[in-house]
Parts: sequence; structure tokens; C-alpha cells
Amino acid sequence: MKIFEVTKKDEKTDARCGIIKVYGKEYKTPMFMPVGTQATVKGMTPEMVKECGSAIILANTYHLWERPGEDIVYNAGGLHKFMNYDGPILTDSGGFQVFSLAKPKDIKEEGVYFKSTIDGKKLFLSPEKSIEIQEKLGADIIISFDECPYYPATYEYMKNSVERTLRWAKRGKDVHKTDQLLFGVVQGGEYEDLREYSAKELIKLDFPGYTIGGTSVGEPKDVMYKMISDSTKHLPYDKPRYLMGVGDPIDIIEGVIRGIDMFDCVLPTRIARHGNAFTRYGKINLKNAKFKEDYTHLEEDCDCYTCKHYSKAYIRHLLMCNEMLAGTLLSIHNIRFLIKLTEEIRSHIENNTLLEYKEDFISKYRK
Amino acid sequence: MKIFEVTKKDEKTDARCGIIKVYGKEYKTPMFMPVGTQATVKGMTPEMVKECGSAIILANTYHLWERPGEDIVYNAGGLHKFMNYDGPILTDSGGFQVFSLAKPKDIKEEGVYFKSTIDGKKLFLSPEKSIEIQEKLGADIIISFDECPYYPATYEYMKNSVERTLRWAKRGKDVHKTDQLLFGVVQGGEYEDLREYSAKELIKLDFPGYTIGGTSVGEPKDVMYKMISDSTKHLPYDKPRYLMGVGDPIDIIEGVIRGIDMFDCVLPTRIARHGNAFTRYGKINLKNAKFKEDYTHLEEDCDCYTCKHYSKAYIRHLLMCNEMLAGTLLSIHNIRFLIKLTEEIRSHIENNTLLEYKEDFISKYRK
Repeated sequence: MKIFEVTKKDEKTDARCGIIKVYGKEYKTPMFMPVGTQATVKGMTPEMVKECGSAIILANTYHLWERPGEDIVYNAGGLHKFMNYDGPILTDSGGFQVFSLAKPKDIKEEGVYFKSTIDGKKLFLSPEKSIEIQEKLGADIIISFDECPYYPATYEYMKNSVERTLRWAKRGKDVHKTDQLLFGVVQGGEYEDLREYSAKELIKLDFPGYTIGGTSVGEPKDVMYKMISDSTKHLPYDKPRYLMGVGDPIDIIEGVIRGIDMFDCVLPTRIARHGNAFTRYGKINLKNAKFKEDYTHLEEDCDCYTCKHYSKAYIRHLLMCNEMLAGTLLSIHNIRFLIKLTEEIRSHIENNTLLEYKEDFISKYRK
Repeated sequence: MKIFEVTKKDEKTDARCGIIKVYGKEYKTPMFMPVGTQATVKGMTPEMVKECGSAIILANTYHLWERPGEDIVYNAGGLHKFMNYDGPILTDSGGFQVFSLAKPKDIKEEGVYFKSTIDGKKLFLSPEKSIEIQEKLGADIIISFDECPYYPATYEYMKNSVERTLRWAKRGKDVHKTDQLLFGVVQGGEYEDLREYSAKELIKLDFPGYTIGGTSVGEPKDVMYKMISDSTKHLPYDKPRYLMGVGDPIDIIEGVIRGIDMFDCVLPTRIARHGNAFTRYGKINLKNAKFKEDYTHLEEDCDCYTCKHYSKAYIRHLLMCNEMLAGTLLSIHNIRFLIKLTEEIRSHIENNTLLEYKEDFISKYRK
């Protein structure tokens, strides 16, 4: 089944505009996907998320497996109904959380043994189990179970890991039986040949889409950008490419330039809860005393709910009083900021002006 | 200026339906007013509050005086603009907070000296200062500065306190210079003659509305109900009567039966943040394990946003994960519950069936 089409290729970079068909509808790429880790985008109703222009949103398999358990979500009618999101949903494999949250862990050929981060009980996650959970959760796009090693890892370690992740991808695909779209994960760390190998072997399994894993795990930015290029250049032109866990505005632009179509990140909601807002001129922290009597909006030309109705002084007041609405208002703005960024990126790909846009954006953002 | 009209008097009780004219519009009473202590109804956007059917909402003078300060609200264009609420707003006098939060305090004829609950700095609040702050905050209805003694207080203490509160009411009225509606506060504790005295002396000052203070300060329910009757029976028929800080559903019904038109309380949002929901059959706590796989709504016949879209199982999941949305969804339901209660009360006053409604409501609610 063809789920993706490139509608415009940038003439100067590997960036492309595309359309992904999912949830019975068509959505434009490049796209930013807000994250609802525990089946809720923190501090926001689903309507607020949609009002920001969201298409696909994420939920985390690991978290939902632990709480409330995939059977409860399944019995509720699946994730869409459980969390009241009338739009496409993607679940990750749980792999990243096992490797980042669970310690200690014991990685075996059959899967990973580790302890619950909630109650310490012994858990086991495998390619088959990950698919089984994701099938019960019922998202539209699901992801192969992979190992996500930290940076730096030795070549030897990474080679073995990539081989195992490929075997896991095959095992997951073999047991996958719903019409959910199962994406494969390119790993390989900073090793160009391993990225190539990982991509090419995955392609043999013919996934409807591919994700780039193993970035944002401690590596410098230039290494991350090279990891992306080293992966995308071996991936099929007509399949979507999803860079997992990246949401810094500049990283999104750099990712698009290297051929990425989809991004997700907790960054916009996480920084919001700490009082931060994205702006064209870099992040600002609303707790700063200088905003005490600033009656302007976060961004005067922003079309988000927050900027339409609230001043910096009000948001600062809410933050100083630990009021929940502060996180909500900042999350709305930050998610809208990243989605608007992808809208602008699409428009500049159409006009072949993405490089100029990048230069202009960075010059202001880093000011 | 006539701001209130009784449109229907219950034939069997002192309950009445009325219309209050404020903020350039007409609103029906009896009415429940959600509380936005710090210029935000906790966990809700103003749109959510309005969707619950809210008319007047409250903000607390004491809190806003301390943070962000009345000048910041004034410079922002007043409370309506600051907090983005396009509807009538009422501020209290700060009196209740001074007496309940600030310790120690030194009550003098000129006002009250006490320490900030935030940073311990010395503060002074007086009738004049309260009016000045409330004029800057810019609510539509404001309240006289009063002393709110705890229950029980000696007759001697209460008599002196009532006398002083009356002198304060006069002083506040003398300096009040905007067209905000200034309400007087009936005090007198559980002493019938002091309630009568307080009411009659206030009437001489001819306020556009009267509030009943000094309830919910530790007294038994039957004492509270008598305090209400002892106050309302001396108040003018054609002026609104507002019972401060009462939001228990049964207390609202009992208050209406004794001639109360307006109620406010933090109860619906406060209990929400602890996982509780009002239902016809009493409060339920969604943290209870029995709701783990309960895919029904909080109330199947409720028309609130929460009951339209979410199951008890989902709300319980959010609570277990400490997700902000739990408090939001429960707050919406609880506020809608109390507003719907007043809507039903109005309808039963129209039909002279309020006593039957009360009996039916209590039999289910206390089941």
C-alpha cells in the first residue's frame, strides 16, 4: 500500500514536501508530531492540540504498557477513543524508554529484561511483545522494537546491536497482523557504514516507512546531522522518514534539509512546564522579572490561542503562583510554534527558498 | 440603580428566581460562581468555564494584591482583559483571607496589620485600601471589607466585631468612587440579634446587594442554615443576596430555600485536583481501583465536556500518572455539576417543586 508521496522536492537540498495517507486522511509533511506520552499531551485537551494544527500525535508504548496497561486501552476501544483524539496516532516501540529509563537492563537475543521504573517489578520486552502491545493500543502507525545505544558506543558494540535490531525488526514484522503501518528503525550510531547497512537491510523487509533512531543520545549536533544524512541517503525516496525525538527548531530545519519528513519531541511541552516559550528570537523564560509588566504577547504575530488572548505579564503571574494554566498556555504556544515552523518550511520548499529561510531563521533565533 | 429583580417566588419557601444586571447583561439567579482565586479558575481556560454555563466568576483581592499586585492588573487593562474572561467578575474584599490565612494579625479600628503569607513582609489592609485595590482590579461587583470571626466567638466579641465591620462598611462606601457594584457584608455569627442588627444597619447604607459572611467557619450545618435565615429575613426583597464561600450541593439547595441568590466556592476545583467528582449519588474518588476498567462516563446523563468524551478509566489513568488533564477534566465536570444544579433549582422554583427536588436530591446524594 502506498501511503506517501513526495509532492515537491527542494532544488537545493534533500528537503521535500509530501503527503502521508493515514487514518483515512491525507496530511502534509514535513510535519511535527506532538507527544502525548501517557495518552495525553501534557496540560492540553485534544481539541487544543488540534487547534495548534496537529496531524499525527504520539503516545508512548512503554508508559501505556506499564500504566494503565494495553488491555485497558484496548477495552476502552483503542487509543483514539481512550484519549479522545480524532486524528492519527503513532506509538513508538518502547525501545527508547527501555534503554533510557530502565536500569539495570539485560539485553538478550530474545529481548530485554529490566525493572519497572514505577514499582520495580521485573519486566520483559521483545519485538513480539512490543508489536502485541502496539496492536492492542491501536495507533495508526507503530514502530519496530529496537535497541537505542547511547553515544558514544564502540563500533563493535554498535555492529552487534544493529544486527540484533535487524533480527528484531524481522521478528516484529513476522508477527504483525493488523493493518497498522509498521515502520522500521534505522540505527548504527555515528558509523556511516552501519547506518547504510541498517537502512539497506531494513529496506529488504519493505516497511511502509522508516524512522531514524539513535540520535539525541548525547552526540554533538554535527554528528547528529551526519547520522541523519547517512541514514536518509539510503532510504527509498517515496517512503516517509521519521526522525525520532527531535524537536529543537534548528534541528527540525536541519533534519528537513537532510530529507526528514516527520519529527516528534516532548520539548515544547516540557520546556513550557518550566516557564519557557519558543520565539523567533530564541527561547524566553517567562519567570524572568523583566516580563512582570510586559503586556505584550509571547509573539505579536503568532496566531495561537495563547498569543491571541494573554500577555507575558499574565503568564508570568500564573507561573509565579504555580497555576496549571501557565503550562497549558505555554504548551499551546510552543506546539503551535513548531507546527507553524513546519508550515513555513513546506512553503519554502515549494519556493526553493529553504536555505535562505534557514539562514534567516538561525540568525534571529540565535541572536 | 436597580440591578436585581425577583422574577418568581417559590410558594413554599423563601427561594426565588431572579435576574441580576451586571457587566451590561442579565444573568439568572440562583447562580453558582466559579472561583478564580489568582485570576484563573484552576486548571481551566476561561472558555472552559463559560462552556460550563458560568456567568459571574470570582477572583480574590487578597491574592491578587499580593501577586501580581493590583497595579499590574490595572495596567493590563483590568481583570477581564488580564485573565481573558468575557463575563462579569466579582472580587471579594480580602477580609476572609486576612482572617483565614494571615497569622498573626492585629485588628485595629483603622484596619488589620498582618504578615504576608508569601514572604512574611508586613502588610496592612483597611476598608479604604480594599476598595482602592478592588477598584484597580476592576471587577464588576466588589465587596466591603469585613472581619470574619471564626465559630464560635463570644457574643461580646461578635458584637464589637459587627459594630466595627459596619463602621468599615461605611468607610469603604465613602471612598468608593467607580460604578462597580459594592455589596455590603452581613456578619453576626450565630447570634440572631446581631445578624438582624448587622443587616438593618447595612440597609441604611443602601448597598445594591448584600452578602452573608461568617458562615463555613467551623459551625455545624444547622447553625449555618440558621445564620442564613437570620440574615436574609432582614434583607430587602429586591436586592441580590450572596452567600460567600458555600458550594456543597446540599448547602446550595438549603441556601436557596432560605432566600440566597448567589454562591461561590473553590470546592468543585479543589476536590477535582484530589481526584473527586460530584455525582447525583454523592462524591466519587476516581483514584479508587474500582474505576480501573470502568469505561462509563462520570455521569451518563451529564452534558459537560468531560462526560461527553472521557471514561472514568481514562480519568483514573490520568490521576495515577499525575497528569494535569485529570484536574482539568474533573474541574469541568464539577463546575458544570454545580451550575446545572442551580439551573435545576431555578426550574423547580418556577414550578413550586423545590422542596420535592431537595428531598429527591438529598436521598440520592447521601445514599
